[in-house]
Order: sequence, then C-alpha cells, then structure tokens
Amino acid sequence: MSNRPSQPLRGFNSQTPKNAFDLSEASLLGDEPSYIDYFYDQPGSMPGTLKIEVDAPPPVIVLIDYSDTKATKVEIEAPEDCEPYLDTESVSWVDVKGLGSEDILKRLGHVFNLHPLVLEDIVNVPQRPKVEEYEDQLLIVARMVTLQANGQSFISEQVSFILGQHYLLTVQEEPDHDSFGPVRERIRCNKGTIRKQKSDYLTYALLDSIIDGFFPVLEAYGERIEELEDEVVSNPTRQTLEKIHGIKRELLTLRRSIWPQRDAINMLIRDGSDLISHDVQIYLRDCYDHTVQVLDMVETYRELASSLMDVYLSSVSNRMNEIMKTLTVISAIFIPLTFVAGIYGMNFNTEISPWNMPELNWYLGYPACLTLMLLITVSLCAFFWRRGWFENISTVKSTVKDD
Amino acid sequence: MSNRPSQPLRGFNSQTPKNAFDLSEASLLGDEPSYIDYFYDQPGSMPGTLKIEVDAPPPVIVLIDYSDTKATKVEIEAPEDCEPYLDTESVSWVDVKGLGSEDILKRLGHVFNLHPLVLEDIVNVPQRPKVEEYEDQLLIVARMVTLQANGQSFISEQVSFILGQHYLLTVQEEPDHDSFGPVRERIRCNKGTIRKQKSDYLTYALLDSIIDGFFPVLEAYGERIEELEDEVVSNPTRQTLEKIHGIKRELLTLRRSIWPQRDAINMLIRDGSDLISHDVQIYLRDCYDHTVQVLDMVETYRELASSLMDVYLSSVSNRMNEIMKTLTVISAIFIPLTFVAGIYGMNFNTEISPWNMPELNWYLGYPACLTLMLLITVSLCAFFWRRGWFENISTVKSTVKDD
Amino acid sequence: MSNRPSQPLRGFNSQTPKNAFDLSEASLLGDEPSYIDYFYDQPGSMPGTLKIEVDAPPPVIVLIDYSDTKATKVEIEAPEDCEPYLDTESVSWVDVKGLGSEDILKRLGHVFNLHPLVLEDIVNVPQRPKVEEYEDQLLIVARMVTLQANGQSFISEQVSFILGQHYLLTVQEEPDHDSFGPVRERIRCNKGTIRKQKSDYLTYALLDSIIDGFFPVLEAYGERIEELEDEVVSNPTRQTLEKIHGIKRELLTLRRSIWPQRDAINMLIRDGSDLISHDVQIYLRDCYDHTVQVLDMVETYRELASSLMDVYLSSVSNRMNEIMKTLTVISAIFIPLTFVAGIYGMNFNTEISPWNMPELNWYLGYPACLTLMLLITVSLCAFFWRRGWFENISTVKSTVKDD
Amino acid sequence: MSNRPSQPLRGFNSQTPKNAFDLSEASLLGDEPSYIDYFYDQPGSMPGTLKIEVDAPPPVIVLIDYSDTKATKVEIEAPEDCEPYLDTESVSWVDVKGLGSEDILKRLGHVFNLHPLVLEDIVNVPQRPKVEEYEDQLLIVARMVTLQANGQSFISEQVSFILGQHYLLTVQEEPDHDSFGPVRERIRCNKGTIRKQKSDYLTYALLDSIIDGFFPVLEAYGERIEELEDEVVSNPTRQTLEKIHGIKRELLTLRRSIWPQRDAINMLIRDGSDLISHDVQIYLRDCYDHTVQVLDMVETYRELASSLMDVYLSSVSNRMNEIMKTLTVISAIFIPLTFVAGIYGMNFNTEISPWNMPELNWYLGYPACLTLMLLITVSLCAFFWRRGWFENISTVKSTVKDD
Amino acid sequence: MSNRPSQPLRGFNSQTPKNAFDLSEASLLGDEPSYIDYFYDQPGSMPGTLKIEVDAPPPVIVLIDYSDTKATKVEIEAPEDCEPYLDTESVSWVDVKGLGSEDILKRLGHVFNLHPLVLEDIVNVPQRPKVEEYEDQLLIVARMVTLQANGQSFISEQVSFILGQHYLLTVQEEPDHDSFGPVRERIRCNKGTIRKQKSDYLTYALLDSIIDGFFPVLEAYGERIEELEDEVVSNPTRQTLEKIHGIKRELLTLRRSIWPQRDAINMLIRDGSDLISHDVQIYLRDCYDHTVQVLDMVETYRELASSLMDVYLSSVSNRMNEIMKTLTVISAIFIPLTFVAGIYGMNFNTEISPWNMPELNWYLGYPACLTLMLLITVSLCAFFWRRGWFENISTVKSTVKDD
Repeated sequence: MSNRPSQPLRGFNSQTPKNAFDLSEASLLGDEPSYIDYFYDQPGSMPGTLKIEVDAPPPVIVLIDYSDTKATKVEIEAPEDCEPYLDTESVSWVDVKGLGSEDILKRLGHVFNLHPLVLEDIVNVPQRPKVEEYEDQLLIVARMVTLQANGQSFISEQVSFILGQHYLLTVQEEPDHDSFGPVRERIRCNKGTIRKQKSDYLTYALLDSIIDGFFPVLEAYGERIEELEDEVVSNPTRQTLEKIHGIKRELLTLRRSIWPQRDAINMLIRDGSDLISHDVQIYLRDCYDHTVQVLDMVETYRELASSLMDVYLSSVSNRMNEIMKTLTVISAIFIPLTFVAGIYGMNFNTEISPWNMPELNWYLGYPACLTLMLLITVSLCAFFWRRGWFENISTVKSTVKDD
Repeated sequence: MSNRPSQPLRGFNSQTPKNAFDLSEASLLGDEPSYIDYFYDQPGSMPGTLKIEVDAPPPVIVLIDYSDTKATKVEIEAPEDCEPYLDTESVSWVDVKGLGSEDILKRLGHVFNLHPLVLEDIVNVPQRPKVEEYEDQLLIVARMVTLQANGQSFISEQVSFILGQHYLLTVQEEPDHDSFGPVRERIRCNKGTIRKQKSDYLTYALLDSIIDGFFPVLEAYGERIEELEDEVVSNPTRQTLEKIHGIKRELLTLRRSIWPQRDAINMLIRDGSDLISHDVQIYLRDCYDHTVQVLDMVETYRELASSLMDVYLSSVSNRMNEIMKTLTVISAIFIPLTFVAGIYGMNFNTEISPWNMPELNWYLGYPACLTLMLLITVSLCAFFWRRGWFENISTVKSTVKDD
Repeated sequence: MSNRPSQPLRGFNSQTPKNAFDLSEASLLGDEPSYIDYFYDQPGSMPGTLKIEVDAPPPVIVLIDYSDTKATKVEIEAPEDCEPYLDTESVSWVDVKGLGSEDILKRLGHVFNLHPLVLEDIVNVPQRPKVEEYEDQLLIVARMVTLQANGQSFISEQVSFILGQHYLLTVQEEPDHDSFGPVRERIRCNKGTIRKQKSDYLTYALLDSIIDGFFPVLEAYGERIEELEDEVVSNPTRQTLEKIHGIKRELLTLRRSIWPQRDAINMLIRDGSDLISHDVQIYLRDCYDHTVQVLDMVETYRELASSLMDVYLSSVSNRMNEIMKTLTVISAIFIPLTFVAGIYGMNFNTEISPWNMPELNWYLGYPACLTLMLLITVSLCAFFWRRGWFENISTVKSTVKDD
Repeated sequence: MSNRPSQPLRGFNSQTPKNAFDLSEASLLGDEPSYIDYFYDQPGSMPGTLKIEVDAPPPVIVLIDYSDTKATKVEIEAPEDCEPYLDTESVSWVDVKGLGSEDILKRLGHVFNLHPLVLEDIVNVPQRPKVEEYEDQLLIVARMVTLQANGQSFISEQVSFILGQHYLLTVQEEPDHDSFGPVRERIRCNKGTIRKQKSDYLTYALLDSIIDGFFPVLEAYGERIEELEDEVVSNPTRQTLEKIHGIKRELLTLRRSIWPQRDAINMLIRDGSDLISHDVQIYLRDCYDHTVQVLDMVETYRELASSLMDVYLSSVSNRMNEIMKTLTVISAIFIPLTFVAGIYGMNFNTEISPWNMPELNWYLGYPACLTLMLLITVSLCAFFWRRGWFENISTVKSTVKDD
Repeated sequence: MSNRPSQPLRGFNSQTPKNAFDLSEASLLGDEPSYIDYFYDQPGSMPGTLKIEVDAPPPVIVLIDYSDTKATKVEIEAPEDCEPYLDTESVSWVDVKGLGSEDILKRLGHVFNLHPLVLEDIVNVPQRPKVEEYEDQLLIVARMVTLQANGQSFISEQVSFILGQHYLLTVQEEPDHDSFGPVRERIRCNKGTIRKQKSDYLTYALLDSIIDGFFPVLEAYGERIEELEDEVVSNPTRQTLEKIHGIKRELLTLRRSIWPQRDAINMLIRDGSDLISHDVQIYLRDCYDHTVQVLDMVETYRELASSLMDVYLSSVSNRMNEIMKTLTVISAIFIPLTFVAGIYGMNFNTEISPWNMPELNWYLGYPACLTLMLLITVSLCAFFWRRGWFENISTVKSTVKDD
C-alpha cells in the first residue's frame, strides 16, 4: 500500500488530468480542497525508498542535445541510451516526463549517478521546493503551474532539475503539460543566445518559464477577487462566503509553493556554485525578482481576501439592519393601530352605563376613530422619517433595481 | 497579442490619462480596482524580449547637458544624437518619455550599451522598484506618483534611471507628467549646488523629488480617512464599507510601491558604488529618511483603516441595537394591551351565566378596562426606563438632529 | 508529592494509554484539553532531582548490538549489563522504555556517565525538544507522535537520545508504542546500509521516523478541517464552534512540539559535531526538510482554522438574516391584514349614523374587504420579491433538501 | 505658500498652544485627529531649503556656559554672540526656542558650521527621530512630550541636538514648554556630577528627561483605558467606540514617535562616537532601558485597545441578546393569548348549529377560557425559565441597579 | 511627593500584601487592573536619585556565609557589618528584603561599591528585567512571582542580583515572600553540590527557582482558561467577557515580565562573563530552557484567549439565532391564526346580502374554521421542521438539561 495521499490535489472533473486546479467558481462548492499535502515516507522506512503510484504515467524520455552549431532531439527508450551524450561538450537536456516505472527511474539514477536521497526527492512527489548541492551536481526541486487552455483551471506539478557539467536532467510528473515549449522552440530555431550557452543557462531559462507561469494563474485569482468585491457588497450570499474562504485556502497553497522557491533561487544567487557561471547569475537575479513579484501579489491577494471576509460580515450585518428596519417600521405602525381597532371591538355593554364605550354611539364615532388612526400613522412615520429609516429602505430598493 | 494586463491601473474617467488613480470618493464605487499587476513575460519567452503596448505614447527624448558654467537643453530625434554628449566631462541628462517605439528603445539600448535585461526592465513596465549594478552602470527602477492639479487623482508610473560616469538616462512611461520640473529649473537657473555636482547628485535630486511626491498623495488619503472616521460613526452606510475596503486596497498598492523603493535606496547607501560619491551618499541618507517616513505613514493609515472596519461593524451593530430597542418597546407595550382588548372582544354569552364576562355589564367596565391598560403601559414604560432604553433612543434622535 | 501536572495530556477513554490524543470528533466535547504543560521543578529544588510518577511503567531495556556482519538483540535486566557492549566497535543501541524506577534510571545515568542535568531532562518529562552537546555525548530531546491503529487517536511522548561514539541510548516514556519497528527490522534483516553505518546514522534513522510519524497525524487534522469546512457553511451548530476552537488549540500544541524540533535539527546540521559524520549530515538535511514540511502544514492548518472561525461567524449571521427575513415577511404580511380585520371587528353603532362603518352594511362589503386584503398581500409580496427576499428563502430550503 | 500641513497636531482649544494633545474625553469627539504628518519638501525643491511657518514664534536663544567651578547663563540676541563660548574648555549649552526667523536660523547654521541638511532637519519640523554623525558633530533629532499642568493635555514638539566637542546646541519648536527645567537647576545649583561632566553627559541628561516625559503621558492613557474597560461592559455607547478608536490612533502616533527614538539611542550605544565617552555610554544604556519600557507600555496599551474593540462588539451583541430575549418573551406569551381571545371573538352563528362555538354558551365558558390562557402563560414561562431567559433579564436589571 | 504610581499592582483584598495578584474569578470584576507600570524618574531628575516609598517595609538583611565545610547565617543590623565577609574565599550571600530606608540602602551601595545607576535600578522598582556588566560586578534584575499558599493569588516583586567574585547581593521588595527557601535549605543541609560551588552557582540556583516559580502561576491560568472554554460555549454571560479580557491583560503583563528575563539569561550565556564559570553556564542553559518554556506557555495561552474572544462572539450570535428562531416560530404560527380569527370577528351584516360572511351561518362554520387553523399550523410546522429549526431548539434545551 502506498501511503501517498490518494488525491493530493483537487481534480477538475473526471476528464481533468490529476493535479488540476479549477478556477471556475462552480468548482468551489462541494469539491474537495486543494492542499498540497507533502509526500511522506512510512515512518521508519529506509531513506531512498521509491514509491511508485499505481496511476502514474510511464516515463517518456526525450533528449535534446545541442551546441551552437547543431541541435538534436532523440526519444530515448532505455535510460542507458543517454550515456553517450552526457560527457560530450554539447549540452544534453534529458527531459523525463512521468513517474510510473520504478525500474526505469532506478536505472536513470544509476546513469546519472544520483544520490539515493536525490532519487527519492525526484520520485516521491510532492516535495518542498529547494536547492541542494551534491558533489558535481545541483538538485533543484521546483513547482510548476500551467494554466489550461480554457483559462479556467491550472495544473500543479513538481519539476526536478539535476544540473551537471554538460547536462541537465529534468523530471516532470505529467507527460502532457509543461511550459517549456517556447524554450524548446528557442533551441530548435536557435533564437537568442541559448544555443551558445551552457546547461546552467538552460536551467535558468526553464526556471524562468516556470516562474512566469505563475502570473497568468495569479491574474485569474485577481479577477475572481474583483468579482467577489462586487458580489460581497451588492449581493452577499452563502456561496460568497465559501468562495472567499476557498480563495484564502488556495492562496495559502500557492504561497507555500512560491515561498520556498524564492528561498531556493536566492540561495543559488547568494551561495553560488561552480556549476553556475557569473553571467547566468545575473539572469537568475532577474528570475529572483519575478519570484518576489509573485510573492508580492500572493500576499496582496491574501490581505484583500481577509479584508473581504470583514466586508462580508459587515455587509451581512448591514442587510440585517435593513431587514430589521422594515420589520420595525411595519410592526410599529400597525401594532398600535390594531390595538385601537381592538379597543372598539370590545363588547362592553353600552346600554348599562353611559361610561361604557360611548364612542360607539357617537354620530361620528367611526370617522373619529379612523382619524385617530391616521394621526398615529402620520406621527410614527414622521418619527421614523426623522431618524432616516425610510431613506435607506428606498436606497436599497433602488440599488437592487439598478443592478 | 501583448500579455500585459490591458488595464493595470484604474482610470479616472475617459479624459484621464492611463495609470491615473482617482482619490475622489465617487470613483470608489463601481470602478475597476487599482492593483499594480506586475509585467510578466509569456512563460518561456526569451529574456530581453520587449513588449510595446499599442497605446503607448511614442518616446520624446530631451537631453540636458550642464556643467558649472553652462547648461544646454536639446530635443533629440534619434537616440544616436546623444552620443557626442555622453563622454564629455559635463553631466548629460537624457530624459526619455514614452515607451511607444521598439526601434527607438533598442537603438537607445545600443547607444547606452545596456544589458538586454536592463532594457527589458525599462520597457516592460511595471517592474518592482530595485537597484542593480552592472559593469559601469547602475540601474534604478523607481515608481513615481504625481498628484494631479485638481488634487483629486494621481498618476502612478515607472521611472528607470541608468546612471553612468558622466550621464544619467531616465525613462518614464508618460510624456505629460513628472515631478522633475523644479529640478530642471534648478539646473537652468543654477540654483543651489546642482550644477557643480556630478550625475550622481542629479540622480539623488530626482529620486528625492519622486519620494517627496508621495507625501501629497498620502495627505489626500489622510483626509479621506478622517472623513471616513466621522462617517463611520455618524452615518454608516454600504458605501462607507466599500470606501474602507477601497482605501485598504489602495494602501496595499502604495505600500508595495514604496517598500522595495526603501530597500533599493538602503542598498545604495549600504553597499555603495563607485558611481556614487561619499557626499551624495549623505544626501541619499536624507532621501532614505523620507522613504521611511512615507512607509511609516502608509502603515499608520493601514492600521487605521483596519480599525475603521472594526468600528464600522460595531457601529452597524449599535444601530441594530437601537432598531431592536424601538421595535421591542413598541411591541412590548402594545401587544399586552391588544391582548386585553381582545379579551373583552370575546363573545361569551353573558346571559347564560353570571360567570361569563360579567365585566361587560359592569357600570364602570370600560373605564376600568382603560385604567388597567394605562397601568400596564405605565409599568412597562417604567421597566424600560429603568433599563435605560428610552435614553438611548432620545440620544440617537438628538444626535441625528444635531448633525 | 510530585508537582508534575497529574493529567498533562487528554486521555482518549479509560482503556487508552496515558498521553493519548483522540482525533475523533466526539472527544472534542466535554473532555479536558490537551496542552503539553512542560514539566517543572518545585521552585528552588536541586538541579538533577528526578521525579518518578506513581503510574509510570517500569523501564524495559533492550539492547541491539550490530555491525555489518552480525546483529544481536538482548533484553537487559540491570543497566550495568550494558557496559560490555558500549566500548566495542559495533554499534550498541540501548532502548529504554518506561520511566518508572528511579533506581534503574540513576544506575543507567551512572553506566552512561550522564551529566545530572541530562538525566533530569530524560526523566522529568515533558521537556522542550532541544539539542545539547556535552563532552563526548550529544543529547537530543524529541517528541514522538504515534497514530493509533484505529486512526482515531494518537500518542504523544518524549524520546531522548544520548549519542556516544559507539552507542546510542534512547529513552521513551511508554513501553507499548513507538515508530521504531521498521528501523529494528532494517537492522535485523540488514536492509539498506544501516548495518554498515555508525551510531550517528542510527540516530538519523530514528529521528526521521519520528518526523515521518507527524504526517499521518497531520493528515487526520486535514480531514477534520475539510469536514468542518462543509459543516460550517451547511449546518453551523454550537458543536462546530467547539470543534474549531479545539483544532486551533491542538494545532498550537503540535506547533509547539515541532517548532523546537526544527531548531534542534537545524542546529545539528549547522553547528556540526564530532559525533556526526559529514555523510549523515546530508541525511539530516533531508530530515530537516521534512520537519519544515510538517511546520508548513501546521501553519497552513492554523490559518485555515482561523479563517473557519470567521466563516462560522459570518455563517451564523447569514442564518440570522434568513430567520429574520422569514419573520419579517410573515409579520409584514399578516399584521396589516389583521389590522384590517380588526377595523371591521369594531362595534360602532351603524344605526346611529350613516358615517359609522357603512361598509358593514354594503351588499358586497365582505368580498370588498377580502379583495382589499388580497391586494395588500400581493403588493407586499411584490415588494419583498423585488428585494429578493423570497429567492434566498427558497434557496436555503432547497440547499437543505439537497444535502 | 508653505506646504507644511497647516494643523499637524490637534489643538486643545483656542487658548492652547499649537501641538497640544488633549487627553480629556471630551476632546475625542468631533475634533480633528492627531496624526504627526511629517514635514515634506515640495517635490523637486532644493535640499536645504528652509520653510518658516507664519505663526512660528521667533527664536529665543539662551546660552548656559558651565564648568566645575562656575556656571553662567546669558540671553543671546544674535547667534554670532555664541562664538566666543564655543571653543573654550567649559561646556556651552545653547538652547534655541522657536523657529520663527529664517535669518537667525541661517546665521545660527553658519556659527555652528552646520551641514545644510542638518539645518533643514532642525527647521523643517516634524522629522522622524534619528541620529546622524557628521564630521565633528552629532545630530540627534528627538520628540518631546510635555504633560500640561492640568494633567489633561500634552504638548508634542521636536527637539534637535547638535553635539560638538565643547558645546551642545538644542533647538526646540516652542519657547514656552520643555522638560529641561530640572537639568538647568542641577547645573545652576551644582547638584550631582553634571558640572564635572562634558557636553555628552548634558546630552544624556536632556535625552533622559525627554524619555521620562513620556511616562506621565502614558499613565494618562493607562487611566483612560481603565475607564473604558469599565464603560465598555457596563454601558457601551457610540461614544465608547469613538474613544477606543481615538486611543488606538493616538497610540499609533506615540509609537511612531518612540520607536525611532529607541533605534536612535541604540545606535548611539552600539556604534559609539568620538564625541561620547565610555562613561556616558553607560548612562545612555539606562536611557535606552527607559525607551524600551515606554515602547513596552505603548505596545501593551495598543493590544489592550484592540482587545477592547472586541469586547465592545461582544458587549453590543450581548445587549442585543437581552433586548431580543425581552421581545421574544413578551411576544411569545401574548401572541398565543391574543389568538385565543381572537377565537372567541369570532361571530359564528351559534344558533344555526350546535357545532358553532358552543363554548360561548357554556355556563363556565369564560372562566374556562381564562384558565386556558393561564395554563398557556404558565407553560410558556416554564419553558423560558428552564432555558434560563428570565435569570439574565433579572441579572441585567440588578446589575444596572447596582451601578 | 513620590511619582511612583501609588498602586502599581492590583491588591487582592485589604489583608493582602502589596503587589499581590488575585487569580480567583471574583477579583476580576470591578477591581483595578494589574499593569506593571514601570518606575520612572521625574523628568529631568538626576540619575541615581532614590525614591523611597512611604509604605515600603524597612530592609532586613540576612547574610549566609558558606563554604564546603561550614555555613553561617547572620542577621545583619548595619550594612557595614557585611564587609568582613565579602573578601574571604567563602561565598557570602547577602539577602536584603525591603526597600524602606534610603540611609541603609545608600550605605549598602557604599559597602558593595555600587554604581549610582545600579543602586537606582535596585531601589526604584519596578524596572525591566536585564543584565548589565560593571567592572567587577554583574547586575541582574529579575521579576519573581510567588504563588500564595491558597493557590488563588500570587505576588509579583523585583529581585536584583549583584554578583561579585566572592559574594552575591540579592535585594527583594518584600520581606515576607520568596521562593528561595529550598535553596537556603540546600545550603544549610549541604544537599547537592551547592556548598562546593561559587557564588555564580548560587546565582543560577536562585534564578532557576525564580523561573520555576512562574509555572504554578501559569498552571493556574491554564485552569482558568479551561473553565472559560466551558463557560463560553455553555453559558456565555457578560462576566465571561470581562474574564477573557482580564486574562488577556494579565498574560500581557506576565509576558512583559518573562520576555526580557529570557533575553537577559540568553545574554549571560552568549556573552559570558569572567564572573560566571563554564560549568555554571551549562546550568544556565537549563535555566534558559525553562524560561523559553514559560514564554511558550504564555504565548499559547494568549492565542487561546484571543480565540476564546472569537468563540464568545460566535457563541453570543448563536444564542441570538436561537432566540430569534423561537420568536419567529411562535410569531409565524400564531400571527396567521390570529388573522383568521380576526376575519371571522368582523361584523359585516350577514343579513343584507348572501355575500357577507356566509361562513358565519354555515352549519359547520366553526369546525371548518378550526380545521383551517389546524391546517395552517401543521403546514407551517412542517415548513420549519424541514428547515431544521425545531431540532436546534430541542437540542439547546437538552444541552441545558444535561449540564
């Protein structure tokens, strides 16, 4: 039995790939939440134990070997087929997608001479983003979000980088989605300087595209918050509440993804590494700036969501005020009137004494009674009018009309 | 398609320039919010790619070349025309306003020998304020807010500084607004020491005027908060709520502008640079103080706005209390009276037995009944009076009257 | 008299071992809370004084002595029996379970040459997790949580490690539960590299299994929070409130356990120690990552629980709104109708004058009156309908139906 | 036009000096708030520009020159008159009160050889408290609060210190108030060691008296918070709310004054300066302790004020509960009774059939009906009694009585 | 006039010693609050001025002189009598209790050669806990809390330590209470190693007993919070609110006592001192751990108290919901019924037309009317039943019953 949480991330619907987050509002109701529950070993298990999930897709390995003058793309069957490329001067980018075969992953670990803990971090996802330096390798664990084509859902998966002298090994969870397409295109078409650079620049380029992938997702959250800002004042319902809480929860998750990523990139810049040249460090500084921008926006959105919860509560109280005002105005006006009517509905025997309800026998008794009622109504209305209760009621009505 | 958010900053009205924030209250209702959504590259795109917005104004280039003895102002057509000035001993301030031409901006990058990432930071606005040192240049990205003449709206735009040995290149988003007028005047009229100083002093002078430009905007927020403090207690409405949330949101944005600016200036002071002389560092310390003051005020306003939200909620609850008191007093008095009236409206046959409603045939039945009602009213009023309910009701009324 | 709090941790039920936490919902109501109240000395008592609790189980001592080639497991009667094993090259793991005998513990202290303060930290539980270096020993105090087999409760106890050159002494509170089984298995079956490694690796392996033991417990909390997220919106009751507060309280406790544990492991990595080899430090880095993940999750859950409290409050207000709407709609419709009925229940003498309630003698008086009532009802309903009050009421009803 | 905020600090009443804060409760209602809005230059203005306010009092200059053996006090007309004293071995304390003359202040700057930025910091008040070291001078900007004699209001003003080798220049905003009297007395009467010490000790003595001046003000806030703690539970009104918010706002301001002051003094101690001897640093440590105590108290008061806001909200909700209970009890009892009375007020024709309201013709119909009503009343009262509603109502009443 | 706040700490009752805190619930209502308002000098007063309070008890001086072989206890009349003991090799512990005589305290300062600021810190209580190193002395200011015998109140007082080479001077505020008894006992009976150690170990022993004295007080708070947790859900009253606020306030005070104490002990460990041996530093590490534990618990309790305030507010809202439900159910059922009764109480003349209330003359008019009412009641009950309103009402009732 694998003790990996069986559904770590909320699925969008049955056709949606695993790990997909859904940004549409509907998905916020009744679905299971979207925590990233980190992978954990069975307590006491050996370090380096690999846990292959049953439904993990089998690995697809693509090797792109390029130098300034040429670029080759090879689909690799067996991990050992990479070996001839690794020690050449040209940059070899081995991109593994899918974690579904323990055998292949172990052989991969053998080919790239990976420390058992590195292999564990790559395979037992999700891990916390981090950078770790090994003898002649650098391990970078990152989290990639990819906005789906429909703009309504995004996929979150782990990407691990193993940077060596002349190669870069990237391992992704899913074969179908990544944000590396434009980088492949730049290699293929020799756009920009990427073919003239080493594997460290490639690492930067991929990391940068991962970070840039957060922005469209954040923008989608920004739009949802804007919508909620309208909704929370004009028409706060129970669903609004769930949506606000849902956004807070998802932003917590996003923050948990991006925060360690920032620390990791900062560590790369600050501590340096023989594997990363000075030039690429300048580019990483740029990438670091973007990570900070993402964090900035996440924090801003979180504070806005918290403020929205207050606005919601106030708004609900406000509505209650209006409801109570309506009730009070109506009750306060009609209850005294009903009392007056009740008085003259009493059956005291008017024939026994002139003190018993003589009004009933007045010539203008009924009109006088109605006039009294009118006076009561007018003075109560004036009382409420001066306290400004009618204004708000009409305001509310017109606001609703305007919407 | 440009993936820059099409309307990053809320417009004031149709005549208002892009990036304008409106401080008047009306604008807080129904407008789109004012987040600074940072510029982001399409994931995987090449570093150094420039994104020119369709509606960006074409660049206007003005060069001011001055030394202690003379000061020349030249409108430049082609960026290459700057070259003769750059290497002379006199200070050359090249001020570029508008980001509407990729060609001119690229040629500018060539003339000033800018790193591709620097050019990207300048053109792909907004970026997070920062300081970056390159071989013989210093990049400073700052955010400038300019209060409009009417005092009701302000413009927020990015200003980038490229400081070289004998020149300063500044790049602004908009040609129409900046707060640099007085500095130009000081250069033209040789006021103060500015003409005796180098380009680093000019950088300081411009940065300082940018920071000073935040104060009038903050003062406007201070006034709005004061108004809300009155409104929230005396007459809290749904609009009040929106205004408080709006202020919180905008202060978050302001804080996000000024916080990295503080860090950047601090870095300038702490790490020093060959391009900035010791004397100017003393001036920058002053500028740093002002930035901290701005932050202080922003934080104070944010805490006040948060407290206002609590006051609002309490105030709404208070009002509800008063409404409920009114309802309760009226109901509690008239419901028992109506019950008494109801009793004597029953039709029990008084002729069948002396036990059936003998009161109806009493000589003083009706006056006795009215007296009973009076007693009930008086004792209930006394009950409520002792609990202090009448006081508040009258207090409220008189408060409303006083306003 | 021992001044250790008699019931520091909430028991599950009478059959449950001491220190057990119960995760099932029922236990959250009416039980005593689950603070870890640290052990404290009677003020002024001598350092090194041991406090044996009356109900502490007597110590059971198991020694496992292993090297690459062999592994022996011995049940030890007297602490002195350990001595022959301690100085051999093979690794000796002395595992003491139970703190019920001052004599044995003191003799143990003598055998292992423990500082009086170390012995105190081991025996007077609970202590705050920490690392302390002594001359040729390293003291690590950790807190271990073990999820029970039923998945509904967990046990929290202190585990102290004394790491020496060739031995590791571990002291646990309880004889019945630990998460070290798989490690024992790995030693017995010579799985992985554990038999080839020193006592420092054993320390790592045990610490790692302690940390991994937190994850199932956290997962249980995650599930409870998910359940509460549903409950708090669909059906908030008084129990929901207690549950949210209970979770906040327990997460505070968990955080207090794991936070110093993180610091302790970090100190091990950062400051190093002669007793811990470089290789094992790499493994400890992995263990540190897991601790940070645990903390991450605890913090996330705490923020979610805080947000849930807000949601609860809003949800309760929402329900109140609905209740008030129902009351207001019913009252507002029937009170005016009752007033009309009251009017025509008055007994003005219609024979005395044509002004006295002529309606009563109209041919169609009663139908006209009913029509009037119908008109009032319809217009009030329309009023409430336009304000959207009916919609919510029906929404609520259908929501309840759907559940 | 000066762009200094025309009324930076709330005036007490028309006779009150500028910058006075009023601590009496009345002043909290309807007055303008008391932010310290820092002075800011017109954007782009020259550094070193002095802004003289129209209503600033003209400077009064007093020089106290003292050594162990003698102490002279001289009222100085022209700043240049100070010069003979400055370079002697005796300590010269030049105390300038009032900022109303640009000419005198500039000449003062010339006499003391002040950097233009120093003069700006002195004159363009308020500035943030800070310490800055110049070539042979130390600038200390501090904020002084002086409790008025009536104990109901306090004055806040800036005091700037320029410490030189043999002199101390202090510049205050107002001529009328300071807390330096006792120090002057100690110099005059040669109390303590002050006459044996240098100008650095004098600086310490004055700083210490400034810090000590915060305590009486804080004590006044402590008393107001205590009063509010009573008021918020026993009799929460709208004014209470305003007072709590007002205290939070003023404590924010106080904190903004004292926080940078602490940093400044800490910097003096940590970084040292040739101008401050080791002995005086020990005294400054004491002064630092006091600053930390002030901050401690401000923070405590702020947390208490925040907690009070929660208490207020809860208290208002509590009151609402009581109101609603009253309404519910009265309505719930009388509405059913009224219904019963309504039944027997119906006019069904009892003569047509024996099924039509035979009760009306029962011999004991009316007493039976009254008994039924009594039964309903008793059982409803019992219902409410068991739910504890009556208790609270009476509790409340008696509480009110007791007050 | 002394400007020390006359009642800095809340008295328990008139027989209670000054500085006593009362933990019983009753004391939380109506008493004055328990801030530690730090001592402050009259602004501008000389450093080193001693302020003797009128009601301070006269000092009692006890000297305990001990070495490994002997231990002498002497009651000292005049401070000068200590001198013979101070320079001997044996450890001299001079314990001064009471601050009521300026003369004796000054002579004490002379005997021990105290810096004027040290004497001031000792005498002018309360001061913030701190450590200060002087030439051959170490000043430690600590705060000691002593739980009274009844377990219902505790005393808070300042203890100052002056550690010299061969002596320790401790100064306490009160002669009657301290937690040093067991340490005296250990010296007298030569228990443990205390007699073999120097004055630094004595300092540790006393500090440790001071820290351990916080635990029983914290435990008392823990119990109060537990009680409040029950009360706040089952029976929230106005007093509950005051209690929660009171606990928050007192925990703030406790935290303010223990926080600087932790810093002080940490400084002792980190910075070392010639007066403290390496061995004792190991013991101080233990003492530091305890301080951190105290802080941990205080912070946990504070978070729990804050959460309790939220629970309180929610709980009050919950109750309001139940009240409103009761009102709504009763009103909603009876108001329509009363309306029906009102209809048939109208007096339309049935003889004039067959359209006028023919029901009144139906043979089964009255039974039909009652049936209609029954139908209305049943359908309304069903409506409320389906919305789950009855359940909660009964739940509440049974909960109350169960308690």
